[in-house]
Amino acid sequence: MNKVGIIGIGHVGATSALIMAQRGHVGEIVLVDKKEAKVKAEQADLQDQIAILDTDTTITVQDYDAESWDQLQDADVIIFSAGQIEALADHGGQRDYELQVTSKIAREIAPKVKASGFNGVIVSITNPCDVIAQILQEEIGLDKSQVVGTGTGLETARMKHAVATATGYNYHDITGYVFGEHGDTMFPVWSSVKVAGQPITDFQLPLDDLTAKIVDGGYLVYRGKAYTNNGIATRANVTAEAILNDSHRAIPVSAYDEAKGLFVGQVAVLGRHGIEKVVPVPLNESEQELFDKSAAAIKANYDKVH
Amino acid sequence: MNKVGIIGIGHVGATSALIMAQRGHVGEIVLVDKKEAKVKAEQADLQDQIAILDTDTTITVQDYDAESWDQLQDADVIIFSAGQIEALADHGGQRDYELQVTSKIAREIAPKVKASGFNGVIVSITNPCDVIAQILQEEIGLDKSQVVGTGTGLETARMKHAVATATGYNYHDITGYVFGEHGDTMFPVWSSVKVAGQPITDFQLPLDDLTAKIVDGGYLVYRGKAYTNNGIATRANVTAEAILNDSHRAIPVSAYDEAKGLFVGQVAVLGRHGIEKVVPVPLNESEQELFDKSAAAIKANYDKVH
Amino acid sequence: MNKVGIIGIGHVGATSALIMAQRGHVGEIVLVDKKEAKVKAEQADLQDQIAILDTDTTITVQDYDAESWDQLQDADVIIFSAGQIEALADHGGQRDYELQVTSKIAREIAPKVKASGFNGVIVSITNPCDVIAQILQEEIGLDKSQVVGTGTGLETARMKHAVATATGYNYHDITGYVFGEHGDTMFPVWSSVKVAGQPITDFQLPLDDLTAKIVDGGYLVYRGKAYTNNGIATRANVTAEAILNDSHRAIPVSAYDEAKGLFVGQVAVLGRHGIEKVVPVPLNESEQELFDKSAAAIKANYDKVH
Amino acid sequence: MNKVGIIGIGHVGATSALIMAQRGHVGEIVLVDKKEAKVKAEQADLQDQIAILDTDTTITVQDYDAESWDQLQDADVIIFSAGQIEALADHGGQRDYELQVTSKIAREIAPKVKASGFNGVIVSITNPCDVIAQILQEEIGLDKSQVVGTGTGLETARMKHAVATATGYNYHDITGYVFGEHGDTMFPVWSSVKVAGQPITDFQLPLDDLTAKIVDGGYLVYRGKAYTNNGIATRANVTAEAILNDSHRAIPVSAYDEAKGLFVGQVAVLGRHGIEKVVPVPLNESEQELFDKSAAAIKANYDKVH
Repeated sequence: MNKVGIIGIGHVGATSALIMAQRGHVGEIVLVDKKEAKVKAEQADLQDQIAILDTDTTITVQDYDAESWDQLQDADVIIFSAGQIEALADHGGQRDYELQVTSKIAREIAPKVKASGFNGVIVSITNPCDVIAQILQEEIGLDKSQVVGTGTGLETARMKHAVATATGYNYHDITGYVFGEHGDTMFPVWSSVKVAGQPITDFQLPLDDLTAKIVDGGYLVYRGKAYTNNGIATRANVTAEAILNDSHRAIPVSAYDEAKGLFVGQVAVLGRHGIEKVVPVPLNESEQELFDKSAAAIKANYDKVH
Repeated sequence: MNKVGIIGIGHVGATSALIMAQRGHVGEIVLVDKKEAKVKAEQADLQDQIAILDTDTTITVQDYDAESWDQLQDADVIIFSAGQIEALADHGGQRDYELQVTSKIAREIAPKVKASGFNGVIVSITNPCDVIAQILQEEIGLDKSQVVGTGTGLETARMKHAVATATGYNYHDITGYVFGEHGDTMFPVWSSVKVAGQPITDFQLPLDDLTAKIVDGGYLVYRGKAYTNNGIATRANVTAEAILNDSHRAIPVSAYDEAKGLFVGQVAVLGRHGIEKVVPVPLNESEQELFDKSAAAIKANYDKVH
Repeated sequence: MNKVGIIGIGHVGATSALIMAQRGHVGEIVLVDKKEAKVKAEQADLQDQIAILDTDTTITVQDYDAESWDQLQDADVIIFSAGQIEALADHGGQRDYELQVTSKIAREIAPKVKASGFNGVIVSITNPCDVIAQILQEEIGLDKSQVVGTGTGLETARMKHAVATATGYNYHDITGYVFGEHGDTMFPVWSSVKVAGQPITDFQLPLDDLTAKIVDGGYLVYRGKAYTNNGIATRANVTAEAILNDSHRAIPVSAYDEAKGLFVGQVAVLGRHGIEKVVPVPLNESEQELFDKSAAAIKANYDKVH
Repeated sequence: MNKVGIIGIGHVGATSALIMAQRGHVGEIVLVDKKEAKVKAEQADLQDQIAILDTDTTITVQDYDAESWDQLQDADVIIFSAGQIEALADHGGQRDYELQVTSKIAREIAPKVKASGFNGVIVSITNPCDVIAQILQEEIGLDKSQVVGTGTGLETARMKHAVATATGYNYHDITGYVFGEHGDTMFPVWSSVKVAGQPITDFQLPLDDLTAKIVDGGYLVYRGKAYTNNGIATRANVTAEAILNDSHRAIPVSAYDEAKGLFVGQVAVLGRHGIEKVVPVPLNESEQELFDKSAAAIKANYDKVH
């Protein structure tokens, strides 16, 4: 039976659970959150949902205060979405403040996961995504292949969305990837992008404007909703299923990069035990520069909390 | 192509759209909301979601300020979820205050829908559900068969959830319905309830306690989350699909009752044009009394805003 | 990862795999069949199918000639659909001949499954369903809770279909079960059947005619197609998923009956380890007689091959 | 409500209906077949299937002998899968014989479809696919944009399958298309093919051997099963859904080519009214030669039956 833990049942964690119950591929979801009334409310609402659908997922709650989160011991995947978006809002959405808050949260939670003996794969969403994925990997003591961040998976979707809008093609006919930090220094690997089999360079598009649109995609949603959840929670589900099904799919994620010594958005093949290999998608010279620069930005953030 | 409008993109409307995009049965969703930045943010987040999934749903936005909401003209179904749950929170969740606010909203919106020439079916969620469904039907001038409220559909799920918990059976093996007001006077038709083919009366359960639990189910979620969305948005989707597929399914909804002259939670057969007939589920004497009492409560509320 | 073996890739086994790949809940399907070219062809056709869908299921083939079918060792569920429907056709569809052929096949295959160390749950389809389920359980040496036949699950669907046609209601609004032999002595437990909450006895239907229609349902399909596959393969999938998800659902299956000492169609709660309990659905006096008579028919067949 | 007709309920047509009922996007399927007992048997088996699933699709049967197939009048899509694979087998699978048989069938059926006033989109599967698509378009008198053949959609899946096997990547990470005749002169547009973002030319694969494998993929299945159904029926469903949802997806199909004056496998954008445009996927010089040659092969066949 597929079993998934979700740590942090805010907007993103709750929506991840909702989509997971809707899709019906997972036999048990373990919810974990500091706010007991909130997590019990989400459990009840998920159970009402499942009672209406024709799917079977058992929803359980792990006691947050336990020193060892034993219910995660035999989970196949943990989705990590703990954060504090309200606090962030109070600080004007400053990424630096977020880094301080969420790295502290990750360090508080890691020992409880470690104590459980969990030996599956973590799909980490919490921002700054690349740094938090690394902190979790180090603090829980998992192999580097056992942790992925959702990374530029969401930006890859936004790239497809932006290119689809600009060309009139369907999102699903745009292929290619966004690489780098899950943040402002990310960049589309334009040399990899095709539109229904046609190189994007054939379309005479202002690619820098498109890149700006992709970066702005998240802010547009955040400004209007005060959070983002649909895209990112779908991204987390699809990534988790690639692992649960031992799919060997190549997925845009934040994966540990041996050369850089850190987690960064690129493409990796995922299977039952996490990352099987990083895919050497060809980057041209300027893309390689952007990748180096983006990795440097992640490194700078990482150093701030070490 | 199936086309659905969703009016009111708060938690419930946004989650309804998210689930609809996930399920992929609908070709176009038209979003309508007073808050422009919010509705555009939801549109973008839904598009990011669809770019990740393998489904095809076009997400459009109807200009709220237009006098005629023309994009709804050829919609097959409208989900009505406009409300103001934050205002409600400020008034301690008082149902009376909610009635005043939402009946006003319904009356503001109805002419814009009417002007579009919409001639499909409305699935109304906004509370108090039974009264608002009736106001919409009257103000838009649709046939009584063209409007349903989600009514006691959600309580029916909560009844299954409560009985499953009490008996150890799976939600999906509990059959039967909850009738009456979508509110505190609702009641399970216990004489209709079976547990994997066994009458519930064989289980020696404290049925009044179970009824209390069903009523409390919504409050538990509301207290912990400040809103409810998973169950109700799923309920709205399932009801909409029963209509879109011309399914002739018997669904617990708020349907117009000829004898009572109002909308009230009962079972109705739904097809492409809305309600095909109300199902005469047998009620025993005490259940009939509860039904009368519950209808009276709806009537009292209805009279307050007429 | 969910792993399922399918033994016997004729029409029913192949369709079971097709539906399983379509639904996408299973990470690996192991195909087993005597005809090597056939099983490789089905593997390739399934892989073409999956390449078009957005699901991930690995399709592998177990060498039939191996003494131990090691690829089934860690399967969670085996669907057993080995038979020889063409030979049956040559004998005018005689059930007696089928019994001789399929019981021999089951006895040939059982040691290979046993040798693998398989310790999951078998969902057996091969006819005569109740007898073959028992032979498999005995010969493989599994616990009685680890084997279910699809039994009257299909007749339960046909009962819903027949009642829906007779009343104008939707299949999904008919609740209740068919019990007994998967064969001509099966019987609907009419006292359990409701139509959208209304007892079927309120409808003044000729119930004996409806029973005859249910029995004939299979023959109608068989006469027109020379086999049946959609319904039975769907039934097998739904039953397998109830097990894989540890759902605790109450499912109409052929389950071992302690009192009768044999496998017979009734309702059982299914979980990860197979049957958790048989549900004591109330039978009235005449239904109890039919049950006894049907069990006796199974016993007579069982004795013919022991 | 989405409504689809399926003409020809052999293995491919029946499997198309089975998958369609499983997916649940279509409200009504109209089955049409010369063999009345067969079509009624498929109807009943589909209804049994739907009674088990949680989907709602009405299955109806069009009287074959009627001069006008009126039930198709308001269908959105017709899947055309009429043929005579058994007769083909008797003639050693000779394509020439097939052409004579199926072109005659298409010409017999076309007037009945035309008489109904059907004005939707035809997705034609029957072989030789490109020629039959054209005959249907001409004989029914639909616009060229209203007919597509499944064409090289299936070979595109087989290309992904072959490349995935050769490289160890997942089918879904292979992008690109196969063009040309649905038959032995088809060819992968290797210059369009990427493997998880990497050009296939980086992999040092024997591409001609891979091409041979793709051609042989169909024969392998045919030899082992005596027909193919999973892949092609899935392909037809996905193509039909792209139309039903007005998706504007770029799909590998057999589409009318203005320059060649015939239907040939290439990529086209599909929407509610059929083909919106042919996508100018860049072909290198040798690919263009292969395309010309393949088109000539189609032309030669087309001329044989005109």
